[in-house]
Order: sequence, then structure tokens, then C-alpha cells
Amino acid sequence: MRKPVIIGVSGGSGSGKTSVSKLIVESFANHSILLIAHDSYYKDQSQLTFHERLKTNYDHPMAFETELLLKHLKDLQNYKAIRIPVYDYTTHTRSTEVIHQEPQDVIIIEGILILEDKKLRNLMDIKVYVDTDDDVRIIRRIRRDIIERERSLDSVIDQYLNYVKPAHHQFVEPSKRYADIIIPEGASNTVGIDLLKTKIQSIINSGE
Amino acid sequence: MRKPVIIGVSGGSGSGKTSVSKLIVESFANHSILLIAHDSYYKDQSQLTFHERLKTNYDHPMAFETELLLKHLKDLQNYKAIRIPVYDYTTHTRSTEVIHQEPQDVIIIEGILILEDKKLRNLMDIKVYVDTDDDVRIIRRIRRDIIERERSLDSVIDQYLNYVKPAHHQFVEPSKRYADIIIPEGASNTVGIDLLKTKIQSIINSGE
Repeated sequence: MRKPVIIGVSGGSGSGKTSVSKLIVESFANHSILLIAHDSYYKDQSQLTFHERLKTNYDHPMAFETELLLKHLKDLQNYKAIRIPVYDYTTHTRSTEVIHQEPQDVIIIEGILILEDKKLRNLMDIKVYVDTDDDVRIIRRIRRDIIERERSLDSVIDQYLNYVKPAHHQFVEPSKRYADIIIPEGASNTVGIDLLKTKIQSIINSGE
Repeated sequence: MRKPVIIGVSGGSGSGKTSVSKLIVESFANHSILLIAHDSYYKDQSQLTFHERLKTNYDHPMAFETELLLKHLKDLQNYKAIRIPVYDYTTHTRSTEVIHQEPQDVIIIEGILILEDKKLRNLMDIKVYVDTDDDVRIIRRIRRDIIERERSLDSVIDQYLNYVKPAHHQFVEPSKRYADIIIPEGASNTVGIDLLKTKIQSIINSGE
């Protein structure tokens, strides 16, 4: 039996990687394609006090239980179902909920740090980096966090300068070097997204 | 009738854009795909003396008769044959020879400056930039010019620093911004090239 195809979609915060991934998955709504966010694998912090949890740097590789994601990807490669953890952003730890996920022929993993991890990279058949200018990325982040998450401008900018930007320069941007293709600008790049869709369609067709 | 699809492949000198373009075209050897080099459209310099021709900056947009390439692309879009000029690098002007070219369903144009020209860009359905580190590009250029073209190391480096590098920073690198997808490293990037091939195959299939 053929192995499922694993596609990694990375890029900085606000690059549009999540939108690109969702646009692709939604265009194959009735096909066997699956989207996994690295963010679902934020470490369980139930052993920490609430105050301690607030100190976590969510832009650092140490914030993730990547070993569990690796195990799940290997299970999916063997066409075994997995149980994806659900992170609770209000309590800053893993919730008791899990999502049961059946294996699929095409798996997209998305996250800022998925190309940074060598073991994750080695599982990917196609590595994509969504590359968007830094000013556009912070504009998107400010809009999202103020409007959708009702945060203050100061807190968004402080978090960006103290955590998001340093991690971007240390881990995310250097991992662009591992990409097979770079898609500028994110979701508005219909030609770049179409190239990926066409490839995925050909993978799905070849398995039919 | 459907218009032919035009794909632009750009990138700096030594980026691997020509190799990428050739690998793609050769993989469709029996199909209706055609490769045009912008370099074939270097200006006719027969009105200049040989000494004057030596002063031409071949890395500058002014060195090309891009209007003729535009006319030819429009002819090809209307499924009319064209006569591609042949440049004579020994006399530094256009030769009397031309190449008769029948129209095809897929047209690849390659060159360092094809994404720099707005009219050319507007004719393209897919814009590709092959992005390779500057040090790797100069290494490839030194190897090629010394081994294949029997030039001295000094002359290669002088030309690079005086013409190639300034034009790269002024015209080529900024045109990356117009790319729909960026392919790192050139011909060794089999995954990136495969994405383009799959798209072209689907275009060819849809016209059959």
C-alpha cells in the first residue's frame, strides 16, 4: 500500500500559512485530505501553576510536544487513526478533550516551526514556506489580536517584540532554507496555491 | 480556442533558471511545450562598430529588444509561428540566421530580466523565480566561464563585480517580488520542479 503524502506549510506569524492551508483543504472538501496544526501539540502544562503557565514562550520549539506529533504522523503513515490533543488557550494547557482523526491520503501540517525540526522535515514529501513581508505580518497580527481576541495594542506589540520577532529570526526565517517551494504573500497568491492544489489533485487521482 | 499558457522562469545569473527550464521542457519532449530565452532577443548591434559593441552591458534591460519578444509572444498566443533571432556571441550582434518556431500550448520564457518588465509579466500565467545564494551563483558562473568559455578568472570576476552584481541588485533581485512561486537552489530541487511539471501536465491534459 502507498504511504500517505505529507505536506508541510510553514511561514512566520501572520504570513498567511494557515489561510493557505485551509484554502487548500477546503478545495478538496470531499476528498481524503487532513490538516493538522502544530499548535494543537503545545505541551500539556497541567503540572504548572496558572501563573507559571503565563511565562511560556509559545514561539519557541520547547513549547511543543513535537514527539507526539511525530508519533501521530507515523501512525497516519501506517493508516492508523490518531487522537489529536486540543489546547485550551484560556487555561494555557491541554484540555481533556481530544479529536479522533481517521487516516487520509494527503496530510498537511502547518505551523511556524515545522520546518525547523529535522525529524518533522524528514517525514515531509513537500515542504512549503509562505513568505510575507515583516510589516504585512505585524499588521495582520495586530488586526487579528485586537479585533478577534480583544487584546490591547500595547500587549500585542510587546509580545511581538519580546517573543514573536526574536523567535522568527532565530528559528522560523532560517528554516525557509529547507523549503522546496516558497509562496510569497499567502492566501492572495492564487497562482501559487493553484500549483499546490494541482499537485495534490494528481496525488489523489493516482490513488483512485 | 484556448490561449497557450505562458510560464516565466527568472532568477539571477547562475541561479539554475536555465537548467530548471530545460529539465521541465525535456520531460515533455513529445508534447507541445516550447522554451524561449530572453537572451535570443539581445538587440541587433550591426549598426555599431565591433569596438562599440564590446561596451554593451548585457545585464541591463536596455540590452534587449523586449518589444520583439512581446510581439512574438502575442503571435504565439494567437497560434501563429514566429522567427526567433539568433545572437552571435563572437561578433556581439544578431546573426542573419533565424529559428522558425511553430506555436505550442505551453510556452516557457527564461531570463534574468523577464520579471522586471511589466508588459512581459502581464502576459505570464505563472511567474517563477529560481532563488539561489549569491556565493553559489558566482561559483557556478566562474566554473562555467572558465571551463566552457575559456575565460580568465580575473575577467570573470571583473565582469561579475562591474556588471552582473549591480544589475542583480538593481533589477533582478527586486523582481522576485512579482513571482508567484520561488524555487530555491535550481535544478537540484526535484520537488519544486515536480510541482511545475505536474501543473504543466494538467494543462496539457486539459487541452487533449
